[in-house]
Amino acid sequence: FGEPLQIVNTSDGHGFELNEDLLAQILLDQRIRDKKVCVLSVAGAFRKGKSFLLDFLLRYLTKQGVPDWMGQEDQPLVGFSWRGGSERETTGIWIWSKVFLCPGPDGEEVAVLLMDTQGAFDSESTVKDCATVFALSTMTSSVQVYNLTQNIQEDDLQHLQLFTEYGRLAMENSSDKPFQSLMFLVRDWSYPYEYNYGEEGGNRVLEKRIKQCGSKHQELLQVRRHIHACFEKIGCFLMPHPGMAVARNPKFDGRLSDIDGEFKEQLCNLAPLLLSRENLLMKEINGTKVTCRALLEYFKAYIKIYQGNELPEPKTMLQATAEANNLAAVASAKDKYVKDIEEVCGGEKPYLSPEELERHHERIKTSALALFNETRKMGGEEFSQPYCDRLQADMDETYQQYLKHNDSKNLFNVAR
Amino acid sequence: FGEPLQIVNTSDGHGFELNEDLLAQILLDQRIRDKKVCVLSVAGAFRKGKSFLLDFLLRYLTKQGVPDWMGQEDQPLVGFSWRGGSERETTGIWIWSKVFLCPGPDGEEVAVLLMDTQGAFDSESTVKDCATVFALSTMTSSVQVYNLTQNIQEDDLQHLQLFTEYGRLAMENSSDKPFQSLMFLVRDWSYPYEYNYGEEGGNRVLEKRIKQCGSKHQELLQVRRHIHACFEKIGCFLMPHPGMAVARNPKFDGRLSDIDGEFKEQLCNLAPLLLSRENLLMKEINGTKVTCRALLEYFKAYIKIYQGNELPEPKTMLQATAEANNLAAVASAKDKYVKDIEEVCGGEKPYLSPEELERHHERIKTSALALFNETRKMGGEEFSQPYCDRLQADMDETYQQYLKHNDSKNLFNVAR
Ligand SMILES: Nc1nc2c(ncn2[C@@H]2O[C@H](COP(=O)(O)OP(=O)(O)O)[C@@H](O)[C@H]2O)c(=O)[nH]1
Ligand SMILES: Nc1nc2c(ncn2[C@@H]2O[C@H](COP(=O)(O)OP(=O)(O)O)[C@@H](O)[C@H]2O)c(=O)[nH]1
Ligand SMILES: [Mg+2]
Ligand SMILES: [Mg+2]
Repeated sequence: FGEPLQIVNTSDGHGFELNEDLLAQILLDQRIRDKKVCVLSVAGAFRKGKSFLLDFLLRYLTKQGVPDWMGQEDQPLVGFSWRGGSERETTGIWIWSKVFLCPGPDGEEVAVLLMDTQGAFDSESTVKDCATVFALSTMTSSVQVYNLTQNIQEDDLQHLQLFTEYGRLAMENSSDKPFQSLMFLVRDWSYPYEYNYGEEGGNRVLEKRIKQCGSKHQELLQVRRHIHACFEKIGCFLMPHPGMAVARNPKFDGRLSDIDGEFKEQLCNLAPLLLSRENLLMKEINGTKVTCRALLEYFKAYIKIYQGNELPEPKTMLQATAEANNLAAVASAKDKYVKDIEEVCGGEKPYLSPEELERHHERIKTSALALFNETRKMGGEEFSQPYCDRLQADMDETYQQYLKHNDSKNLFNVAR
Repeated sequence: FGEPLQIVNTSDGHGFELNEDLLAQILLDQRIRDKKVCVLSVAGAFRKGKSFLLDFLLRYLTKQGVPDWMGQEDQPLVGFSWRGGSERETTGIWIWSKVFLCPGPDGEEVAVLLMDTQGAFDSESTVKDCATVFALSTMTSSVQVYNLTQNIQEDDLQHLQLFTEYGRLAMENSSDKPFQSLMFLVRDWSYPYEYNYGEEGGNRVLEKRIKQCGSKHQELLQVRRHIHACFEKIGCFLMPHPGMAVARNPKFDGRLSDIDGEFKEQLCNLAPLLLSRENLLMKEINGTKVTCRALLEYFKAYIKIYQGNELPEPKTMLQATAEANNLAAVASAKDKYVKDIEEVCGGEKPYLSPEELERHHERIKTSALALFNETRKMGGEEFSQPYCDRLQADMDETYQQYLKHNDSKNLFNVAR
């Protein structure tokens, strides 16, 4: 049957490590290493039924999609670890140890890999942690299931935008669209009377949420453009609520008899939509289909990039905004300093005594600092202090340069 | 009974306007204008039962909290407009036209105002829109109910942090803690076996989520510190799921008989927790209790600030990060330009022919531009272009200054 294997784990709480040996053991297995690969990943917030769903997909693959693949009514659901409770369960990235060989759309056998990810937004993970897991799983999968609940909200799109940008940044000279298939999976959909459960309703919701651009604000358009530019294919599927036993009963063990009929019905549509022979999507990178062996190399390369320091760090909204505000305020203040000091001792101005120049410097510096301090910036004073310090040091340094330029105008010096 | 009144509306899709006459009509009513005021606001994502909850609070106030305040089993729920469906319903900020006069904790009559807000994150609203509504409602209320579903996630805290910072920015010389009471209200709580429904379980969840700081990452600590610094009092309440009829039946009209017993039970605890005589919290601004009349003036002042251009704009995570990345890259490139050009024509360097200086400028500019372009920045090339253009213009301008400084060293000129 197999077992879940943690292939990416957090090394020191933050920062990720690839469990290379383990991944190699799986991907370099003789049976599959030269097969093209389909990687299905599920990502999204923590505690939203991601692992639970994957365990049904596992059944579908194990039973090769025969009509009664869902199994016995009283069979507990096993596989990737899932459970009730409010705390996070999965950390890092996991794959299922058994890679399935399935005939693909053109008859050739494809290796199918299931990937489970650490839920985003738990109270131990930074934005960077969440972005890294999401980006890595998007980069290495052919189908990324974006698991949401109740609706597709604008903040869901904004997170997707940030996370995929973080992925795109790490993929050098990538082709036009860096990623392949994205499936919005909306759990606990409550409005079947507006948009029906399943793919058709899902695509209509998607149409409303991310395709219709009409008279929208520039910011909303940018988010939508970005998502379209990142994925070759975007779909959406609306899942019904599985019933109160699933959501709330701590003794629920995943047996079918405790799950709402409508949920099971839609599961029967969803699994083949993602994994049936006709729909199996092979992983491509830069337009080339990738084998298991090659996938291992990509994994190694990608994780190395995230371990390095080249990439800008994703941060909280407030931190990013505060940083931008402070950098902009520093730049304006510095501009003002240079403009004002040029006016008193630019190249066309006469020589000033050092004392006079220093007095000008102090006055101009004070007024530039005042400009910096007056500019409203997010993050408060504590956040601004290092920027303010750097601005002062920068002005002092520039002053030293002007001192020398001024000195060079001193006729007495010139004459010597 | 009263009716909902829109006191803040979106003027041109984005940007907000105060319906001053309407608000004055309510707040300057002779009956209440000189009374101290308690403002209870509910804010959070769209379509999460905010208006539905408020309508029960309205019943509680109307019936002055008598034991059977919830009403008849088959009575439809009316008040602030609520409904099923996936699209947003409320825009801007609404208050209930009837202001309730209730005895406060010390016997003095207090005017109680209920406030409903536009749901955040619908697909028509920008981050700035959401931040403005949330900030305005936090600034004008004494109790802000932050309506969440299923759990308290890290992104919920990050949004709260950004939105409250946007509020704090607009309040000048505010006292230590700018806002009063914050109540995390978690709807559809599914883990009563871990943390029980209600206040006690809520406070334990809160403890886990925002109070325990142990060995957390700096970013997580900052979010928590910020929230603690903004509110005088922070609580949490866990609400059960109200049942499938409430969530999913388009014909559900709010009647009690269709609502799960546990939900009603907790509603009976929640309403007095927010609005009973002992718990009524009077609005204070800068340490002073505010009357209805004064509240009107604050409303006018606050909205004016958000209509102006002084405040930095809240943006999407990607936009804020891209902006910070580009500003930082511009600053580094400009620094490099100045450092390098100082080396060839600083004050201590001899005069260069204009042709020679121009050659240096071109070389140094090219290498500074290369530094800018090599730096990995979020947002892509399109986003970077204006920054790159500005950087070039800036270097050209600086070059003009150096040209003049260089010229001033020309002995021929000096001799003239
Ligand atoms: N409301 C709801 N709960 C679900 C659904 N699927 C699974 N669950 C429950 O959600 C909890 C968390 O499931 P899990 O798969 O561990 O979530 P993960 O953290 O996203 O992997 C379990 O108690 C499941 O029974 C669903 O579609 N809706
Ligand atoms: N799942 C769930 N649905 C609720 C709850 N309370 C109300 N609803 C339903 O959620 C939908 C939206 O309610 P509404 O009050 O208009 O949401 P708002 O946009 O946040 O003001 C309606 O269909 C309500 O019946 C709740 O606690 N849980
Ligand atoms: Mg999981
Ligand atoms: Mg509403």
